[in-house]
Amino acid sequence: MASDKVFEIHRRLAADTHLLGCGQLCEVRLMNDATWPWIILVPQRPSVREIYELTEVDQQRLLWESSTLGRGLMALFGGDKLNVAALGNMVPQLHLHHIVRFEDDPAWPGPVWGKQSPRSYEPEALAGMKLRLQPLVESLARGA
Amino acid sequence: MASDKVFEIHRRLAADTHLLGCGQLCEVRLMNDATWPWIILVPQRPSVREIYELTEVDQQRLLWESSTLGRGLMALFGGDKLNVAALGNMVPQLHLHHIVRFEDDPAWPGPVWGKQSPRSYEPEALAGMKLRLQPLVESLARGA
Repeated sequence: MASDKVFEIHRRLAADTHLLGCGQLCEVRLMNDATWPWIILVPQRPSVREIYELTEVDQQRLLWESSTLGRGLMALFGGDKLNVAALGNMVPQLHLHHIVRFEDDPAWPGPVWGKQSPRSYEPEALAGMKLRLQPLVESLARGA
Repeated sequence: MASDKVFEIHRRLAADTHLLGCGQLCEVRLMNDATWPWIILVPQRPSVREIYELTEVDQQRLLWESSTLGRGLMALFGGDKLNVAALGNMVPQLHLHHIVRFEDDPAWPGPVWGKQSPRSYEPEALAGMKLRLQPLVESLARGA
């Protein structure tokens, strides 16, 4: 049974993503949609829905992990724009999207949500993506 | 002529919003769409597109202004969820959306962008909204 005292990933987030590793604060998860490089940070804190509900120390940590991840993703994939968003209308557990956008991607210049069905990674593409992202994920675990 | 050395609000952001005031870092702007309480923070820094391009001090400041604003908006309007997002596909100048969402709003549970045409504020409603938001905007200027 889910507890509100212990962090447990929301089942919808777990179903839609592949766990890549953990930063000091967040689980780092790859959205299972090969259309875009799309990473979600999930602070490992129970019952938190909004960024401002985190302690100040955790907010700082989230900011650092988010900025480090965002800078790294843009360097790795050479995107035209990064989208960073905490929405949570469907999954209330706080999670922060990082999506690398390209001017020729299928939803540009609109947001990605609800535009098209996710295109699941093939096993080989997933393995390649994990390998490519590994140093960045490890840098989140090491900290500043 | 727009300069890349001096901050100047993007003309599209200026056209779509009403300036409410300034925090220590950001212009605080009300999106001209009465459908949702929707505030945009625009860091007053030239040529910045991504959060990670701000200095660390400015990132801290943005986080503080965003969290203070978000907490205040949710307290004022009693929303069901706050959406916080830096997209910038249409307007590259860094700006951070804060949108109070309700489970019975016209786009729930989807994101608000592109769902429907903005519903401009009537003058009286705008004046009321500004009055209601004034203490919160002033708290952003005062700082922590």
